[in-house]
Amino acid sequence: MATTLYTPTRVTLGKGAEDSLGDELKRNGAKKVLVHYGSERIVRDGLMKRLTDQMDREGIEYVLLGGVQPNPRLSLVRKGIELSRKEGVDFIVAAGGGSAIDSAKAIAYGLYDKDGDVWDFYTGERKPQGAYPVGVVLTLSATGSEMSDSSVITNEEGDLKRGVNSDYARPRFALLDPELTYTVPPYQTSCGTADMMMHTIERFFHSGPTLELTDSLAIALLRTVAENGIRALKNPKDYEARKNLMWASSLSHNGLMQEGNAQRGDWACHQMEHELSGLFDVAHGAGLTAIWGTWARYVCLEDPERFAKLGEGVFGTKRTGSPERDAEAAIKAFEEYFRTIHMPTSIRDLGVRPTEKQIDEMAEKAVFWGKRTLGAFKVLGKEDIARIYTEASK
Amino acid sequence: MATTLYTPTRVTLGKGAEDSLGDELKRNGAKKVLVHYGSERIVRDGLMKRLTDQMDREGIEYVLLGGVQPNPRLSLVRKGIELSRKEGVDFIVAAGGGSAIDSAKAIAYGLYDKDGDVWDFYTGERKPQGAYPVGVVLTLSATGSEMSDSSVITNEEGDLKRGVNSDYARPRFALLDPELTYTVPPYQTSCGTADMMMHTIERFFHSGPTLELTDSLAIALLRTVAENGIRALKNPKDYEARKNLMWASSLSHNGLMQEGNAQRGDWACHQMEHELSGLFDVAHGAGLTAIWGTWARYVCLEDPERFAKLGEGVFGTKRTGSPERDAEAAIKAFEEYFRTIHMPTSIRDLGVRPTEKQIDEMAEKAVFWGKRTLGAFKVLGKEDIARIYTEASK
Repeated sequence: MATTLYTPTRVTLGKGAEDSLGDELKRNGAKKVLVHYGSERIVRDGLMKRLTDQMDREGIEYVLLGGVQPNPRLSLVRKGIELSRKEGVDFIVAAGGGSAIDSAKAIAYGLYDKDGDVWDFYTGERKPQGAYPVGVVLTLSATGSEMSDSSVITNEEGDLKRGVNSDYARPRFALLDPELTYTVPPYQTSCGTADMMMHTIERFFHSGPTLELTDSLAIALLRTVAENGIRALKNPKDYEARKNLMWASSLSHNGLMQEGNAQRGDWACHQMEHELSGLFDVAHGAGLTAIWGTWARYVCLEDPERFAKLGEGVFGTKRTGSPERDAEAAIKAFEEYFRTIHMPTSIRDLGVRPTEKQIDEMAEKAVFWGKRTLGAFKVLGKEDIARIYTEASK
Repeated sequence: MATTLYTPTRVTLGKGAEDSLGDELKRNGAKKVLVHYGSERIVRDGLMKRLTDQMDREGIEYVLLGGVQPNPRLSLVRKGIELSRKEGVDFIVAAGGGSAIDSAKAIAYGLYDKDGDVWDFYTGERKPQGAYPVGVVLTLSATGSEMSDSSVITNEEGDLKRGVNSDYARPRFALLDPELTYTVPPYQTSCGTADMMMHTIERFFHSGPTLELTDSLAIALLRTVAENGIRALKNPKDYEARKNLMWASSLSHNGLMQEGNAQRGDWACHQMEHELSGLFDVAHGAGLTAIWGTWARYVCLEDPERFAKLGEGVFGTKRTGSPERDAEAAIKAFEEYFRTIHMPTSIRDLGVRPTEKQIDEMAEKAVFWGKRTLGAFKVLGKEDIARIYTEASK
């Protein structure tokens, strides 16, 4: 009956947050750091130098490993583990967005696990027993990986995208400077906004009792994100908008938005999106909004009042007395919002046309070849999932 | 410019949360525990046995120390330090409300500090350099001490009530079972509701920029607390109401409600209340509501829009176009709410009649004999404080 929330990450939020890196590493006793990153922009724009200067000053050694891609790859994780072993790394700093963080967490699992294969944790064959410490300098507001227990990696062999959750992966610190997101392109800003909204929305939908306080915080967060997503698109250097989005990304995925609820949320859209982006390499946030509306209409009758409450709280959709009609209005309001920030509301909008065979393959993978179902608000089997993929592709 | 949030406490919320005590102590490597508590009801009602049974099962030794009073006393803290030293205690469990937790934190500071006087930390003469680990089994939703960095102790010599904040004091775990608050008497339920509301309200008022996300979470929390405070008074065994209050008490004081804001909040009402309850031993929550309305009207013109926003968000007070009028409506709405839950809205309502000399003494103590001012929304000197005490006593 009881639920646990554990958010040990020390978060620093605001201008110049990244200047605490040296202090944070010292506090954590780091001696040799792997700085793991994606875009070379981090080096080109001078952020990397600001980070390494601090480590130089503290007498902390470091080695750099860039090249993380969206939907981070297992091959780079393996390379990072090997490099870190050779170099005697004892702390990993992810500088970037969710991909760099998730990749850093995977390296952290692999480093701790002396003799096995790190992919075992992602297939669920083994459970992590520990991880090396990870810290974050965030440059993209989206996945919330900077406080979450989650890491998602794509294995190129078989296009498998798999996630593992454990408290060992929660970063020791997260440095959130909104100014570091000023140069995030509009499409990525939208994808990030969609992603963080979906982290809270997924948690909002389940089938057990909910805590009113958590509902009200979730609605307040979603309303604030929706407003600030538009502001950040209009003016990418709107400090307040970027700051709201940055903090919202962390709060959406650190567990606060599910605390006290009977279940951890639905997550079917996330699992379906993992298969979609595993196969077609679409942006995660866009993949989510492409599926969500179809999912929502497919499951809505389980409890239309839940959708109505969400729509009313976030977008002020009116109550008519008919929960079904109000739920449809709520779903429409979300779709309209997604379109306003130029996010797709169907797989077709993504420019992707999965064949029947591909849909079958995605559905098959999503249920782990019959080993699991998806969803909590409504439990979905392979047939349901294939139908949602098909409907969303029309 | 940047602010830090650090909430390392592992929170377990829901029925039977206290049954995790053995696991939590084991996870933290506890060998000998001081169980520190207030009311003997904890022993009489069987909670203590449920706790010690778990320690017996895990082979963890323990020693009990009860007798914590509201506005916990320094003399008991000293006794706890002495007892713990003698017994070789390495972990402290507070079983109770804020007083037991604050007293446990003080013992934890004292145990870590090998040769000085623990009261030095409370006068500000020395800064804590560490503390023994503390865990919490909560039986009263109010102070939020179960996640906070704060401890407030009363020194009987001189009726001095003083607080110290440091991350060392943040509990390792907090076990929140709403059912353990079913027997909290109505007056204490109201005081707790008022106290947690005031923790969020104090943070809402400061003079620098605020983060919209934090504002919107604060308003959502206050609205939920206000509703559930009334529900819990109507039916003390309303599980959902008790659960909402319990979690809100933690979130009101763990730092979330100030993250991203330029300042930590106003806190003048808290400091003024400390002197009031230091001298007259009134309940903290009641002392706060007794002062708040007078404080609010005294400082309101600094930024009436801030009050108007709060009133509209929490109680739906209308906007008329005049921020001053809207602010007064907001203050009235809060006072009306406090009266609804039978809380005082003046010092007179408390049944206390401070003399001029006592008011002067409280004001003098509140500013540390001229060494500090109070407040951030509006900075208050001794004169202002004396005027607020006087006005609130009329």
